[in-house]
Formats: sequence, C-alpha cells, structure tokens
Amino acid sequence: MHFRHDLVPDDRDRVRAIVESTGFFSEEEADVAVELVDERLAKGAASGYEFVLAEVDGETVGYACFGRVPLTQSSFDLYWLAVRPGKQRGGLGRALVGEVERTVASLGGGRIYADTSGRRQYAPTRTFYTAMGYAQAARLPDFFAPGDDKVVFAKEVTVQQSLGQMAPGDCCPGAPTDSYVQDDRIRFFK
Amino acid sequence: MHFRHDLVPDDRDRVRAIVESTGFFSEEEADVAVELVDERLAKGAASGYEFVLAEVDGETVGYACFGRVPLTQSSFDLYWLAVRPGKQRGGLGRALVGEVERTVASLGGGRIYADTSGRRQYAPTRTFYTAMGYAQAARLPDFFAPGDDKVVFAKEVTVQQSLGQMAPGDCCPGAPTDSYVQDDRIRFFK
Repeated sequence: MHFRHDLVPDDRDRVRAIVESTGFFSEEEADVAVELVDERLAKGAASGYEFVLAEVDGETVGYACFGRVPLTQSSFDLYWLAVRPGKQRGGLGRALVGEVERTVASLGGGRIYADTSGRRQYAPTRTFYTAMGYAQAARLPDFFAPGDDKVVFAKEVTVQQSLGQMAPGDCCPGAPTDSYVQDDRIRFFK
Repeated sequence: MHFRHDLVPDDRDRVRAIVESTGFFSEEEADVAVELVDERLAKGAASGYEFVLAEVDGETVGYACFGRVPLTQSSFDLYWLAVRPGKQRGGLGRALVGEVERTVASLGGGRIYADTSGRRQYAPTRTFYTAMGYAQAARLPDFFAPGDDKVVFAKEVTVQQSLGQMAPGDCCPGAPTDSYVQDDRIRFFK
C-alpha cells in the first residue's frame, strides 16, 4: 500500500465510488465529499483541503480529507475518512489516520478534530478513535437530527510524537487488532 | 432601522467596512467574511449562507451571516455578527440575532450555534449570548490558539417560540439593557 497526496481529476469518481461503496452515506453526503475534491482541484492548497489516498495494487481503496480550520493557529479538522468495504479489515482506516497525523506533524503539529455521530451504529467509529488516542472533547445533542448527536474527538499531534511513534508501516502502536475496524465508514462533516 | 436579506455586489465593500471598522478582526478574518459574501452572490441560496443586513438612514450599520450546517436536519450556524462601532449601543446586535432567529423559525426552526472565543476580551460576547437565551454547549481548549478556547453557544428556536416572543420591534424580551452590548463585535468562524 502507498499513500498519494496529490489529486487528479479522475479522483472525483474514485472518491465518489469509495464513499458510495460503503453504503453508509447519503447522496447529499457523497455530493459534499466530491465538492471538497472539486475545491482542491480548483484552488490547490488555498482550498484548505488536504487529501490522503490509499492505493493497493494500483487501486484507490480509501481516502482521508482534512485541513487546518480557517482562522485557527493549528487546529485541523478530519472531514472525511472512508474505506472500501472488504478492505476495512486490513487496518486501512488506522493507516490513513496515521498518515494524516504524520502530515499534520510535518506542518508543525496541532490538534486534530474528528466529528462523528453519537448513534449506536457509530459505536465502532467512536471505539476506533478512542483506540487511536483521541478523546471526546464535546457532544452536541441532536446536532445532526433528533436523537443524532454530534460527538467531537480530539488528539494533539506534536512533531516529536509523530517522529517517535509513527514511522511509516508502524502506525499507531497500541491500537487494537483489526476486528474493531470493521465499521470505519466514518462520516465527517464540513 | 430595517433589515435586508438580499445581497448586492456593493455589499462586498460594505461588509468589509463593517468588519474592519470594529478593529476586532484580523485581515484573514475580514477576507473570510467577504468570501462568504462572494459565495452567496455567486451561488445564491445554494451557497448555504444567509445574510441579514441592518440599515439605518440608508446606511448599512451591521450584519449577520448564518446558514444551515450541511448534512444536518435543522442545525444552523451563526458565522458572523458585526456592528459598526458607535452603533453598538443601540441594541443592533440583539436586533440582528432576533432577525436571524425569526428567519430560522420561518424555515421550520432548529438549533442555532454561535462560536466565540473563551478569552477575557470576549466576556461581553459570552454575556450577550447568555442574555439572548443561548447556553454553552461545548468548550474546546486552545482551539483558536494556545490560551484561546472555542466556546460554542446554542439555542433552540421553534416556530411557536418565535411567533410568540419575537414580533418585529419586540426582539428578545428579558434581554438586559444596552449597556452590555458595547462589545458585540463578535467573531465567528466558517
């Protein structure tokens, strides 16, 4: 597996295919995911959106989208993380988050925020973040819809931490085994 | 005073002038404020940004920018609220927030979120929101910068509430007198 950071126009379809393949996202959500690809293609780094695409045997099997939150010194938002079903047990979600953290560290470090839902079906997602060293920073009741809270996870990433703990291929020591990543079709929000 | 909801190209300069006149915002912040005007002018309602401009004697003296948070059923974000200095003691901030709440109510109601800073100089802003019936929903330490927390306020607005309590010209009963609004140069973030 290797990571790619530069987008090409064909990634519009690839990202949509990944997001739709999860069966987890609405059409509106898939549209938003592609919109961020368009923004990046149109404006480059000035868009504020960074991408990490995971490729296995020439196929793009997952991706993450993140960026510095405008008007903050060093807060980053992990907007999207999605992995093709069937690839989800290979630790791809962990590897992608590890690559996001390394990239943030290379930018000088900061806090990474990841939003997810408080619904029962997202329990594996919350477990995933907890295992990756993220702590719950806030919970906004009924944010997405009645009964659907927003849960905000946060992790501080420093340059030193990253260099020490996250060599390529050795992402996230202490993270549990793959079994819990079966549902890392995590939804994020702009 | 009357409210205007439709933008015209000249509002780019008007919004920048209002934001800069407060002396409270950085250039990057002013740029973001104008960017949202551009988005609205280019894409209309599809931009997701709604505006309320307050006009007194033909002069635009303050404005609010808000919108439904993408992928939520009925959560709204109050992105910007700014009032020209010298106009700030006239209850304009309260009137603008009241108009935003009436608009949200007319869209079916929902929760309005307003982000601000936890720094000491924003204490009047936090007092302002509390007086307007907003409650602190979250606090994210060091979000904007070291020592500069993000504080999230939230208020639920229902159709009934709005009709009962917020007739035009009778905004926000129970809100204290103007004296505390001297510093309603509130910053919001996209």
